[in-house]
Amino acid sequence: MLTYDYPKRVRYGETDRMGYLYYGNYAQYYEIGRVEWLRNCGISYKEMEELHGIIMPVVSLQMRYVRPALYDELLTIRTTLKALPDRFVTFQMEIFNESHKLVNGGTVRLCFVHSPSGKSVHAPDFLLQKLQPYFEKN
Amino acid sequence: MLTYDYPKRVRYGETDRMGYLYYGNYAQYYEIGRVEWLRNCGISYKEMEELHGIIMPVVSLQMRYVRPALYDELLTIRTTLKALPDRFVTFQMEIFNESHKLVNGGTVRLCFVHSPSGKSVHAPDFLLQKLQPYFEKN
Amino acid sequence: MLTYDYPKRVRYGETDRMGYLYYGNYAQYYEIGRVEWLRNCGISYKEMEELHGIIMPVVSLQMRYVRPALYDELLTIRTTLKALPDRFVTFQMEIFNESHKLVNGGTVRLCFVHSPSGKSVHAPDFLLQKLQPYFEKN
Amino acid sequence: MLTYDYPKRVRYGETDRMGYLYYGNYAQYYEIGRVEWLRNCGISYKEMEELHGIIMPVVSLQMRYVRPALYDELLTIRTTLKALPDRFVTFQMEIFNESHKLVNGGTVRLCFVHSPSGKSVHAPDFLLQKLQPYFEKN
Repeated sequence: MLTYDYPKRVRYGETDRMGYLYYGNYAQYYEIGRVEWLRNCGISYKEMEELHGIIMPVVSLQMRYVRPALYDELLTIRTTLKALPDRFVTFQMEIFNESHKLVNGGTVRLCFVHSPSGKSVHAPDFLLQKLQPYFEKN
Repeated sequence: MLTYDYPKRVRYGETDRMGYLYYGNYAQYYEIGRVEWLRNCGISYKEMEELHGIIMPVVSLQMRYVRPALYDELLTIRTTLKALPDRFVTFQMEIFNESHKLVNGGTVRLCFVHSPSGKSVHAPDFLLQKLQPYFEKN
Repeated sequence: MLTYDYPKRVRYGETDRMGYLYYGNYAQYYEIGRVEWLRNCGISYKEMEELHGIIMPVVSLQMRYVRPALYDELLTIRTTLKALPDRFVTFQMEIFNESHKLVNGGTVRLCFVHSPSGKSVHAPDFLLQKLQPYFEKN
Repeated sequence: MLTYDYPKRVRYGETDRMGYLYYGNYAQYYEIGRVEWLRNCGISYKEMEELHGIIMPVVSLQMRYVRPALYDELLTIRTTLKALPDRFVTFQMEIFNESHKLVNGGTVRLCFVHSPSGKSVHAPDFLLQKLQPYFEKN
Protein backbone atom coordinates (compact mmCIF):
# COMPACT_ATOMS: atom_id res chain seq x y z
CA MET A 1 0.00 0.00 0.00
CA LEU A 2 1.40 3.29 -1.11
CA THR A 3 0.05 6.61 0.10
CA TYR A 4 1.08 10.13 -0.84
CA ASP A 5 -0.29 13.46 0.41
CA TYR A 6 -0.24 16.60 -1.69
CA PRO A 7 -1.49 20.08 -0.68
CA LYS A 8 -3.86 22.11 -2.84
CA ARG A 9 -5.47 25.42 -2.01
CA VAL A 10 -9.07 26.14 -3.06
CA ARG A 11 -9.02 29.05 -5.51
CA TYR A 12 -11.71 31.69 -6.04
CA GLY A 13 -12.45 30.53 -9.57
CA GLU A 14 -13.00 27.01 -8.24
CA THR A 15 -15.79 28.05 -5.88
CA ASP A 16 -19.41 28.38 -6.92
CA ARG A 17 -22.13 30.69 -5.71
CA MET A 18 -22.83 28.39 -2.73
CA GLY A 19 -19.33 29.46 -1.65
CA TYR A 20 -18.09 25.86 -1.90
CA LEU A 21 -15.50 24.21 -4.07
CA TYR A 22 -17.68 23.30 -7.08
CA TYR A 23 -18.41 19.57 -7.20
CA GLY A 24 -17.11 19.33 -10.75
CA ASN A 25 -13.63 20.50 -9.76
CA TYR A 26 -12.81 17.48 -7.60
CA ALA A 27 -11.90 15.38 -10.64
CA GLN A 28 -9.02 17.75 -11.34
CA TYR A 29 -7.93 17.42 -7.70
CA TYR A 30 -7.87 13.66 -8.25
CA GLU A 31 -5.71 14.18 -11.35
CA ILE A 32 -3.27 16.30 -9.34
CA GLY A 33 -3.18 13.66 -6.62
CA ARG A 34 -2.35 10.74 -8.90
CA VAL A 35 0.23 12.64 -10.99
CA GLU A 36 2.07 13.76 -7.85
CA TRP A 37 1.78 10.25 -6.43
CA LEU A 38 3.49 8.98 -9.61
CA ARG A 39 6.16 11.69 -9.40
CA ASN A 40 6.81 10.69 -5.79
CA CYS A 41 7.46 7.13 -7.05
CA GLY A 42 9.96 8.49 -9.57
CA ILE A 43 7.57 8.35 -12.52
CA SER A 44 6.77 11.32 -14.74
CA TYR A 45 3.37 10.97 -16.35
CA LYS A 46 4.52 13.39 -19.04
CA GLU A 47 7.47 11.14 -19.93
CA MET A 48 5.21 8.09 -19.91
CA GLU A 49 3.19 9.80 -22.63
CA GLU A 50 6.05 11.32 -24.57
CA LEU A 51 8.83 8.75 -24.26
CA HIS A 52 6.83 5.53 -23.95
CA GLY A 53 3.68 6.44 -25.88
CA ILE A 54 1.46 5.27 -23.02
CA ILE A 55 -1.62 7.33 -22.21
CA MET A 56 -3.91 6.59 -19.28
CA PRO A 57 -7.55 7.39 -20.00
CA VAL A 58 -9.95 7.30 -17.05
CA VAL A 59 -12.36 4.36 -17.19
CA SER A 60 -14.53 5.07 -14.17
CA LEU A 61 -14.90 7.47 -11.30
CA GLN A 62 -16.79 7.36 -8.02
CA MET A 63 -17.00 10.11 -5.44
CA ARG A 64 -18.90 10.86 -2.31
CA TYR A 65 -19.05 14.43 -1.10
CA VAL A 66 -18.82 14.38 2.69
CA ARG A 67 -18.59 18.06 3.63
CA PRO A 68 -18.00 21.27 1.70
CA ALA A 69 -14.53 22.67 1.02
CA LEU A 70 -14.35 26.43 1.36
CA TYR A 71 -12.52 29.22 -0.42
CA ASP A 72 -8.80 29.50 0.41
CA GLU A 73 -8.72 26.30 2.46
CA LEU A 74 -5.47 24.38 2.09
CA LEU A 75 -6.72 20.88 1.36
CA THR A 76 -4.73 17.66 1.44
CA ILE A 77 -5.17 15.26 -1.47
CA ARG A 78 -4.35 11.74 -0.27
CA THR A 79 -3.74 9.18 -3.01
CA THR A 80 -3.38 5.49 -2.23
CA LEU A 81 -2.60 2.47 -4.36
CA LYS A 82 -3.76 -0.78 -2.78
CA ALA A 83 -2.90 -3.21 -5.55
CA LEU A 84 -0.33 -3.43 -8.32
CA PRO A 85 -1.70 -2.33 -11.71
CA ASP A 86 -2.51 -4.95 -14.34
CA ARG A 87 -4.49 -3.75 -17.37
CA PHE A 88 -6.01 -1.20 -15.02
CA VAL A 89 -4.89 0.84 -12.07
CA THR A 90 -7.22 2.00 -9.30
CA PHE A 91 -6.39 4.91 -7.05
CA GLN A 92 -8.16 5.46 -3.72
CA MET A 93 -8.65 9.17 -3.14
CA GLU A 94 -9.36 11.13 0.02
CA ILE A 95 -9.42 14.88 0.39
CA PHE A 96 -9.07 16.43 3.85
CA ASN A 97 -9.55 20.00 5.02
CA GLU A 98 -7.31 21.98 7.39
CA SER A 99 -9.06 20.42 10.40
CA HIS A 100 -8.15 16.94 9.04
CA LYS A 101 -11.80 16.18 8.36
CA LEU A 102 -12.72 14.21 5.27
CA VAL A 103 -14.19 16.44 2.55
CA ASN A 104 -14.45 13.95 -0.29
CA GLY A 105 -13.54 10.32 -0.90
CA GLY A 106 -13.60 8.16 -3.99
CA THR A 107 -11.86 5.95 -6.46
CA VAL A 108 -10.67 6.48 -10.00
CA ARG A 109 -9.81 3.66 -12.39
CA LEU A 110 -7.60 4.15 -15.44
CA CYS A 111 -6.38 1.89 -18.20
CA PHE A 112 -3.18 1.91 -20.24
CA VAL A 113 -3.34 2.66 -23.96
CA HIS A 114 -0.49 2.46 -26.43
CA SER A 115 -1.07 5.78 -28.07
CA PRO A 116 0.28 5.15 -31.60
CA SER A 117 -1.83 1.98 -32.04
CA GLY A 118 -4.77 2.99 -29.84
CA LYS A 119 -4.66 -0.49 -28.23
CA SER A 120 -5.31 -1.14 -24.58
CA VAL A 121 -2.21 -2.69 -23.01
CA HIS A 122 -0.90 -4.08 -19.72
CA ALA A 123 0.77 -1.72 -17.24
CA PRO A 124 4.28 -1.07 -18.61
CA ASP A 125 7.24 -2.86 -17.03
CA PHE A 126 9.11 0.28 -15.99
CA LEU A 127 6.06 1.25 -13.92
CA LEU A 128 5.73 -2.17 -12.30
CA GLN A 129 9.45 -2.26 -11.50
CA LYS A 130 9.16 1.03 -9.63
CA LEU A 131 6.12 -0.14 -7.68
CA GLN A 132 6.93 -3.77 -6.87
CA PRO A 133 9.42 -3.05 -4.03
CA TYR A 134 6.72 -1.18 -2.08
CA PHE A 135 4.33 -4.08 -2.31
CA GLU A 136 6.93 -6.71 -1.38
CA LYS A 137 7.77 -4.82 1.82
CA ASN A 138 4.22 -5.15 3.05
CA MET B 1 -39.77 7.76 -15.74
CA LEU B 2 -38.90 11.16 -17.06
CA THR B 3 -36.22 11.71 -19.68
CA TYR B 4 -34.95 14.91 -21.23
CA ASP B 5 -32.27 15.41 -23.90
CA TYR B 6 -30.17 18.54 -24.12
CA PRO B 7 -27.46 19.32 -26.70
CA LYS B 8 -23.99 20.52 -25.74
CA ARG B 9 -21.06 21.11 -28.01
CA VAL B 10 -17.51 20.21 -26.89
CA ARG B 11 -15.48 23.42 -26.70
CA TYR B 12 -11.74 23.83 -27.28
CA GLY B 13 -11.08 24.83 -23.71
CA GLU B 14 -12.80 21.64 -22.55
CA THR B 15 -10.44 19.35 -24.44
CA ASP B 16 -7.10 18.19 -23.09
CA ARG B 17 -3.87 17.38 -24.86
CA MET B 18 -5.16 13.88 -25.68
CA GLY B 19 -7.64 15.78 -27.88
CA TYR B 20 -10.56 14.46 -25.81
CA LEU B 21 -13.15 16.17 -23.65
CA TYR B 22 -11.26 16.22 -20.33
CA TYR B 23 -12.67 13.65 -17.89
CA GLY B 24 -13.13 16.32 -15.23
CA ASN B 25 -15.53 18.32 -17.39
CA TYR B 26 -18.29 15.70 -17.46
CA ALA B 27 -19.56 16.73 -14.04
CA GLN B 28 -20.47 20.13 -15.47
CA TYR B 29 -22.28 18.39 -18.33
CA TYR B 30 -24.26 16.49 -15.70
CA GLU B 31 -25.10 19.82 -14.02
CA ILE B 32 -26.33 21.22 -17.33
CA GLY B 33 -28.40 18.08 -17.91
CA ARG B 34 -30.22 18.15 -14.59
CA VAL B 35 -30.85 21.92 -14.60
CA GLU B 36 -32.36 21.73 -18.09
CA TRP B 37 -34.34 18.65 -17.05
CA LEU B 38 -35.78 20.70 -14.17
CA ARG B 39 -36.52 23.64 -16.49
CA ASN B 40 -38.31 21.27 -18.83
CA CYS B 41 -40.53 20.25 -15.90
CA GLY B 42 -41.30 23.92 -15.23
CA ILE B 43 -38.84 24.27 -12.35
CA SER B 44 -36.13 26.90 -12.21
CA TYR B 45 -33.23 25.79 -10.05
CA LYS B 46 -32.33 29.45 -9.62
CA GLU B 47 -35.76 30.24 -8.19
CA MET B 48 -35.57 27.18 -5.97
CA GLU B 49 -32.47 28.70 -4.43
CA GLU B 50 -33.57 32.32 -4.39
CA LEU B 51 -37.30 32.12 -3.66
CA HIS B 52 -37.48 28.92 -1.62
CA GLY B 53 -34.03 28.88 0.01
CA ILE B 54 -33.44 25.30 -1.08
CA ILE B 55 -29.97 24.37 -2.32
CA MET B 56 -29.11 20.96 -3.71
CA PRO B 57 -25.56 19.87 -2.88
CA VAL B 58 -24.26 16.78 -4.65
CA VAL B 59 -23.87 13.80 -2.32
CA SER B 60 -22.32 11.25 -4.66
CA LEU B 61 -21.29 10.78 -8.26
CA GLN B 62 -20.49 7.75 -10.37
CA MET B 63 -19.33 7.76 -13.96
CA ARG B 64 -17.99 5.33 -16.47
CA TYR B 65 -16.17 6.65 -19.51
CA VAL B 66 -17.13 4.51 -22.47
CA ARG B 67 -15.52 6.27 -25.42
CA PRO B 68 -13.85 9.65 -25.93
CA ALA B 69 -15.79 12.76 -26.93
CA LEU B 70 -13.96 14.88 -29.44
CA TYR B 71 -13.57 18.59 -30.07
CA ASP B 72 -16.59 20.30 -31.64
CA GLU B 73 -18.84 17.22 -31.37
CA LEU B 74 -22.44 18.07 -30.60
CA LEU B 75 -23.18 15.75 -27.70
CA THR B 76 -26.57 14.88 -26.27
CA ILE B 77 -26.94 14.92 -22.50
CA ARG B 78 -29.77 12.57 -21.53
CA THR B 79 -31.10 12.99 -17.99
CA THR B 80 -33.56 10.53 -16.50
CA LEU B 81 -35.43 10.42 -13.21
CA LYS B 82 -36.57 6.91 -12.31
CA ALA B 83 -38.05 7.56 -8.88
CA LEU B 84 -39.68 10.46 -7.10
CA PRO B 85 -37.31 12.37 -4.82
CA ASP B 86 -37.53 11.91 -1.04
CA ARG B 87 -34.66 13.35 1.01
CA PHE B 88 -32.50 12.64 -2.02
CA VAL B 89 -32.88 12.75 -5.76
CA THR B 90 -30.91 10.52 -8.14
CA PHE B 91 -30.46 11.38 -11.80
CA GLN B 92 -29.40 8.78 -14.36
CA MET B 93 -27.10 10.38 -16.89
CA GLU B 94 -26.08 9.30 -20.38
CA ILE B 95 -24.05 11.29 -22.87
CA PHE B 96 -24.19 10.36 -26.54
CA ASN B 97 -22.09 11.53 -29.47
CA GLU B 98 -23.31 12.53 -32.95
CA SER B 99 -23.36 8.87 -34.02
CA HIS B 100 -25.72 8.10 -31.10
CA LYS B 101 -23.03 6.06 -29.38
CA LEU B 102 -22.73 6.20 -25.62
CA VAL B 103 -19.77 8.32 -24.52
CA ASN B 104 -20.33 8.39 -20.78
CA GLY B 105 -22.94 7.08 -18.34
CA GLY B 106 -23.45 7.59 -14.65
CA THR B 107 -25.58 8.67 -11.75
CA VAL B 108 -25.53 11.71 -9.55
CA ARG B 109 -27.30 11.92 -6.19
CA LEU B 110 -28.21 15.21 -4.53
CA CYS B 111 -29.88 16.18 -1.27
CA PHE B 112 -32.07 19.13 -0.35
CA VAL B 113 -30.78 21.68 2.16
CA HIS B 114 -32.72 24.58 3.63
CA SER B 115 -30.09 27.21 3.05
CA PRO B 116 -30.84 29.65 5.92
CA SER B 117 -30.76 26.89 8.56
CA GLY B 118 -28.26 24.58 6.84
CA LYS B 119 -30.55 21.62 7.62
CA SER B 120 -31.13 18.72 5.27
CA VAL B 121 -34.82 18.56 4.32
CA HIS B 122 -37.28 16.48 2.32
CA ALA B 123 -37.85 17.34 -1.37
CA PRO B 124 -40.08 20.45 -1.39
CA ASP B 125 -43.79 20.07 -2.15
CA PHE B 126 -43.80 22.34 -5.21
CA LEU B 127 -41.20 20.05 -6.78
CA LEU B 128 -43.14 16.87 -5.97
CA GLN B 129 -46.37 18.37 -7.29
CA LYS B 130 -44.71 19.07 -10.63
CA LEU B 131 -43.28 15.57 -10.85
CA GLN B 132 -46.10 13.37 -9.51
CA PRO B 133 -48.28 13.49 -12.65
CA TYR B 134 -45.46 11.98 -14.75
CA PHE B 135 -45.04 9.07 -12.38
CA GLU B 136 -48.79 8.38 -12.09
CA LYS B 137 -49.09 8.12 -15.86
CA ASN B 138 -46.58 5.27 -15.88
CA MET C 1 -18.36 44.43 -40.88
CA LEU C 2 -19.67 41.07 -39.87
CA THR C 3 -21.56 40.47 -36.64
CA TYR C 4 -22.96 37.27 -35.18
CA ASP C 5 -24.88 36.73 -31.93
CA TYR C 6 -24.77 33.47 -30.02
CA PRO C 7 -26.62 32.64 -26.78
CA LYS C 8 -24.88 31.14 -23.76
CA ARG C 9 -26.35 30.46 -20.37
CA VAL C 10 -24.30 31.04 -17.20
CA ARG C 11 -23.83 27.68 -15.46
CA TYR C 12 -23.47 27.03 -11.73
CA GLY C 13 -19.92 25.80 -12.08
CA GLU C 14 -19.02 29.04 -13.88
CA THR C 15 -20.07 31.24 -10.98
CA ASP C 16 -17.81 32.08 -8.05
CA ARG C 17 -18.63 32.75 -4.43
CA MET C 18 -19.49 36.37 -5.26
CA GLY C 19 -22.38 34.79 -7.18
CA TYR C 20 -21.05 36.20 -10.46
CA LEU C 21 -19.77 34.57 -13.61
CA TYR C 22 -16.08 34.19 -12.67
CA TYR C 23 -13.91 36.71 -14.52
CA GLY C 24 -11.66 33.94 -15.81
CA ASN C 25 -14.50 32.24 -17.67
CA TYR C 26 -15.10 35.06 -20.15
CA ALA C 27 -12.20 33.93 -22.34
CA GLN C 28 -14.06 30.69 -23.04
CA TYR C 29 -17.17 32.72 -23.93
CA TYR C 30 -14.99 34.60 -26.42
CA GLU C 31 -13.84 31.26 -27.85
CA ILE C 32 -17.45 30.14 -28.25
CA GLY C 33 -18.31 33.45 -29.92
CA ARG C 34 -15.59 33.32 -32.55
CA VAL C 35 -16.02 29.63 -33.37
CA GLU C 36 -19.76 30.12 -33.90
CA TRP C 37 -19.04 33.27 -35.90
CA LEU C 38 -16.79 31.18 -38.15
CA ARG C 39 -19.42 28.42 -38.43
CA ASN C 40 -21.98 31.05 -39.41
CA CYS C 41 -19.64 32.07 -42.27
CA GLY C 42 -19.45 28.43 -43.38
CA ILE C 43 -16.09 27.74 -41.78
CA SER C 44 -15.45 24.91 -39.36
CA TYR C 45 -12.55 25.68 -37.06
CA LYS C 46 -12.16 21.95 -36.50
CA GLU C 47 -11.72 21.34 -40.24
CA MET C 48 -9.32 24.25 -40.48
CA GLU C 49 -7.13 22.42 -37.98
CA GLU C 50 -7.65 18.89 -39.24
CA LEU C 51 -7.89 19.32 -43.02
CA HIS C 52 -5.74 22.40 -43.56
CA GLY C 53 -3.28 22.09 -40.66
CA ILE C 54 -3.92 25.68 -39.60
CA ILE C 55 -4.15 26.42 -35.88
CA MET C 56 -5.03 29.85 -34.50
CA PRO C 57 -3.23 30.62 -31.22
CA VAL C 58 -4.37 33.71 -29.34
CA VAL C 59 -1.81 36.51 -29.41
CA SER C 60 -3.46 39.06 -27.15
CA LEU C 61 -6.63 39.66 -25.20
CA GLN C 62 -8.24 42.73 -23.68
CA MET C 63 -11.40 42.84 -21.63
CA ARG C 64 -13.29 45.31 -19.55
CA TYR C 65 -15.84 44.03 -17.07
CA VAL C 66 -18.80 46.41 -17.12
CA ARG C 67 -21.34 44.69 -14.88
CA PRO C 68 -21.67 41.25 -13.33
CA ALA C 69 -23.35 38.35 -15.11
CA LEU C 70 -25.46 36.22 -12.80
CA TYR C 71 -26.22 32.53 -12.47
CA ASP C 72 -28.64 31.14 -15.08
CA GLU C 73 -28.73 34.36 -17.14
CA LEU C 74 -28.99 33.74 -20.86
CA LEU C 75 -26.22 35.94 -22.20
CA THR C 76 -25.66 36.98 -25.80
CA ILE C 77 -22.13 36.75 -27.13
CA ARG C 78 -21.74 39.23 -29.99
CA THR C 79 -18.71 38.71 -32.23
CA THR C 80 -17.72 41.27 -34.84
CA LEU C 81 -15.02 41.33 -37.50
CA LYS C 82 -14.18 44.85 -38.65
CA ALA C 83 -11.31 44.12 -41.00
CA LEU C 84 -10.24 41.26 -43.21
CA PRO C 85 -7.56 39.05 -41.61
CA ASP C 86 -3.95 39.32 -42.80
CA ARG C 87 -1.35 37.57 -40.66
CA PHE C 88 -3.66 38.27 -37.73
CA VAL C 89 -7.37 38.42 -37.14
CA THR C 90 -8.99 40.61 -34.49
CA PHE C 91 -12.45 39.93 -33.15
CA GLN C 92 -14.45 42.58 -31.29
CA MET C 93 -16.42 40.98 -28.51
CA GLU C 94 -19.44 42.17 -26.55
CA ILE C 95 -21.46 40.18 -24.06
CA PHE C 96 -24.97 41.32 -23.18
CA ASN C 97 -27.34 40.17 -20.44
CA GLU C 98 -31.07 39.46 -20.78
CA SER C 99 -31.86 43.17 -20.32
CA HIS C 100 -29.60 43.94 -23.32
CA LYS C 101 -27.09 45.68 -21.06
CA LEU C 102 -23.40 45.29 -21.77
CA VAL C 103 -21.74 42.90 -19.33
CA ASN C 104 -18.27 42.68 -20.86
CA GLY C 105 -16.50 44.04 -23.93
CA GLY C 106 -13.10 43.36 -25.42
CA THR C 107 -10.95 42.26 -28.29
CA VAL C 108 -9.04 39.10 -29.00
CA ARG C 109 -6.28 38.83 -31.58
CA LEU C 110 -5.16 35.54 -33.09
CA CYS C 111 -2.53 34.52 -35.60
CA PHE C 112 -2.41 31.68 -38.11
CA VAL C 113 0.15 28.93 -37.68
CA HIS C 114 0.86 26.09 -40.10
CA SER C 115 0.79 23.32 -37.57
CA PRO C 116 3.18 20.78 -39.19
CA SER C 117 5.94 23.38 -39.65
CA GLY C 118 5.10 25.58 -36.64
CA LYS C 119 5.48 28.65 -38.91
CA SER C 120 3.28 31.72 -38.66
CA VAL C 121 1.43 32.22 -41.98
CA HIS C 122 -0.99 34.56 -43.70
CA ALA C 123 -4.75 33.96 -43.33
CA PRO C 124 -5.55 31.02 -45.64
CA ASP C 125 -7.22 31.72 -49.00
CA PHE C 126 -10.34 29.63 -48.34
CA LEU C 127 -11.02 31.81 -45.30
CA LEU C 128 -10.51 35.08 -47.19
CA GLN C 129 -12.72 33.88 -50.05
CA LYS C 130 -15.56 33.25 -47.62
CA LEU C 131 -15.15 36.66 -45.97
CA GLN C 132 -14.42 38.98 -48.91
CA PRO C 133 -18.02 39.20 -50.19
CA TYR C 134 -19.20 40.62 -46.86
CA PHE C 135 -16.59 43.34 -46.91
CA GLU C 136 -17.21 44.30 -50.56
CA LYS C 137 -20.91 44.83 -49.86
CA ASN C 138 -20.09 47.50 -47.30
CA MET D 1 7.67 48.33 -6.23
CA LEU D 2 6.69 45.03 -4.79
CA THR D 3 7.25 41.76 -6.60
CA TYR D 4 6.34 38.22 -5.56
CA ASP D 5 6.95 34.95 -7.39
CA TYR D 6 4.69 31.93 -6.97
CA PRO D 7 5.10 28.52 -8.64
CA LYS D 8 2.26 26.78 -10.47
CA ARG D 9 2.39 23.56 -12.42
CA VAL D 10 0.40 23.17 -15.66
CA ARG D 11 -2.17 20.41 -15.12
CA TYR D 12 -3.57 18.01 -17.71
CA GLY D 13 -7.07 19.42 -17.43
CA GLU D 14 -5.67 22.89 -18.12
CA THR D 15 -4.19 21.94 -21.48
CA ASP D 16 -6.16 21.93 -24.72
CA ARG D 17 -5.86 19.76 -27.79
CA MET D 18 -3.01 21.93 -29.10
CA GLY D 19 -1.14 20.53 -26.09
CA TYR D 20 -0.79 24.04 -24.63
CA LEU D 21 -2.09 25.63 -21.46
CA TYR D 22 -5.50 26.86 -22.72
CA TYR D 23 -5.51 30.63 -23.19
CA GLY D 24 -8.59 30.97 -21.00
CA ASN D 25 -6.83 29.50 -17.96
CA TYR D 26 -4.32 32.32 -17.57
CA ALA D 27 -6.85 34.51 -15.78
CA GLN D 28 -6.96 31.99 -12.95
CA TYR D 29 -3.14 32.02 -12.84
CA TYR D 30 -3.38 35.80 -12.44
CA GLU D 31 -5.85 35.30 -9.57
CA ILE D 32 -3.43 32.90 -7.86
CA GLY D 33 -0.59 35.37 -8.35
CA ARG D 34 -2.35 38.35 -6.77
CA VAL D 35 -3.84 36.39 -3.85
CA GLU D 36 -0.42 34.95 -2.98
CA TRP D 37 1.13 38.39 -3.43
CA LEU D 38 -1.39 39.71 -0.87
CA ARG D 39 -0.69 36.81 1.50
CA ASN D 40 3.02 37.54 1.22
CA CYS D 41 2.25 41.13 2.38
CA GLY D 42 0.35 39.71 5.37
CA ILE D 43 -3.09 40.22 3.86
CA SER D 44 -5.65 37.44 3.51
CA TYR D 45 -8.06 38.13 0.67
CA LYS D 46 -10.53 35.78 2.35
CA GLU D 47 -10.47 37.87 5.55
CA MET D 48 -10.80 41.06 3.53
CA GLU D 49 -14.07 39.68 2.22
CA GLU D 50 -15.31 38.04 5.40
CA LEU D 51 -14.11 40.40 8.15
CA HIS D 52 -14.09 43.73 6.31
CA GLY D 53 -16.82 43.18 3.74
CA ILE D 54 -14.56 44.34 0.91
CA ILE D 55 -14.72 42.45 -2.38
CA MET D 56 -12.45 43.18 -5.32
CA PRO D 57 -14.14 42.70 -8.69
CA VAL D 58 -11.92 42.79 -11.76
CA VAL D 59 -12.45 45.89 -13.89
CA SER D 60 -10.17 45.18 -16.80
CA LEU D 61 -7.67 42.65 -18.05
CA GLN D 62 -4.99 42.71 -20.73
CA MET D 63 -2.79 39.84 -21.76
CA ARG D 64 -0.30 39.05 -24.46
CA TYR D 65 0.57 35.44 -25.12
CA VAL D 66 4.27 35.27 -25.90
CA ARG D 67 4.96 31.54 -26.11
CA PRO D 68 3.03 28.41 -25.23
CA ALA D 69 3.17 26.81 -21.80
CA LEU D 70 3.27 23.03 -21.91
CA TYR D 71 1.82 20.22 -19.85
CA ASP D 72 3.56 19.61 -16.50
CA GLU D 73 5.80 22.69 -16.77
CA LEU D 74 6.43 24.36 -13.44
CA LEU D 75 5.64 27.99 -14.27
CA THR D 76 6.48 31.03 -12.18
CA ILE D 77 3.74 33.61 -11.71
CA ARG D 78 5.38 36.99 -11.02
CA THR D 79 3.07 39.65 -9.58
CA THR D 80 4.20 43.26 -9.24
CA LEU D 81 2.56 46.34 -7.76
CA LYS D 82 4.04 49.56 -9.11
CA ALA D 83 1.77 52.09 -7.42
CA LEU D 84 -0.21 52.27 -4.20
CA PRO D 85 -3.90 51.47 -4.69
CA ASP D 86 -6.45 54.29 -4.66
CA ARG D 87 -9.97 53.42 -5.81
CA PHE D 88 -8.30 50.84 -8.04
CA VAL D 89 -5.33 48.55 -7.86
CA THR D 90 -3.35 47.42 -10.89
CA PHE D 91 -1.18 44.34 -10.84
CA GLN D 92 1.53 43.73 -13.45
CA MET D 93 1.68 40.04 -14.28
CA GLU D 94 4.39 37.97 -15.90
CA ILE D 95 4.46 34.21 -16.27
CA PHE D 96 7.77 32.44 -16.92
CA ASN D 97 8.51 28.86 -17.89
CA GLU D 98 11.22 26.59 -16.47
CA SER D 99 13.78 28.11 -18.86
CA HIS D 100 12.97 31.57 -17.42
CA LYS D 101 11.42 32.62 -20.72
CA LEU D 102 8.35 34.84 -20.68
CA VAL D 103 5.21 32.89 -21.51
CA ASN D 104 2.57 35.55 -20.88
CA GLY D 105 2.48 39.13 -19.63
CA GLY D 106 -0.34 41.46 -18.77
CA THR D 107 -2.10 43.67 -16.32
CA VAL D 108 -5.23 43.25 -14.27
CA ARG D 109 -7.10 46.13 -12.66
CA LEU D 110 -9.52 45.66 -9.77
CA CYS D 111 -11.69 47.98 -7.72
CA PHE D 112 -12.82 47.84 -4.10
CA VAL D 113 -16.50 47.33 -3.33
CA HIS D 114 -18.13 47.48 0.09
CA SER D 115 -20.11 44.30 -0.23
CA PRO D 116 -23.12 45.03 2.04
CA SER D 117 -23.85 48.36 0.29
CA GLY D 118 -22.56 47.44 -3.17
CA LYS D 119 -20.72 50.80 -3.30
CA SER D 120 -17.32 51.29 -4.85
CA VAL D 121 -14.88 52.51 -2.19
CA HIS D 122 -11.27 53.61 -1.73
CA ALA D 123 -8.63 51.00 -0.90
CA PRO D 124 -9.09 50.18 2.81
CA ASP D 125 -6.66 51.67 5.35
CA PHE D 126 -5.42 48.35 6.69
CA LEU D 127 -4.29 47.48 3.18
CA LEU D 128 -2.55 50.81 2.60
CA GLN D 129 -0.81 50.58 5.99
CA LYS D 130 0.66 47.22 5.03
CA LEU D 131 1.84 48.50 1.66
CA GLN D 132 3.11 52.01 2.44
CA PRO D 133 6.43 50.95 4.03
CA TYR D 134 7.47 49.17 0.83
CA PHE D 135 6.84 52.25 -1.26
CA GLU D 136 8.62 54.63 1.12
CA LYS D 137 11.78 52.52 0.99
CA ASN D 138 12.02 53.05 -2.73
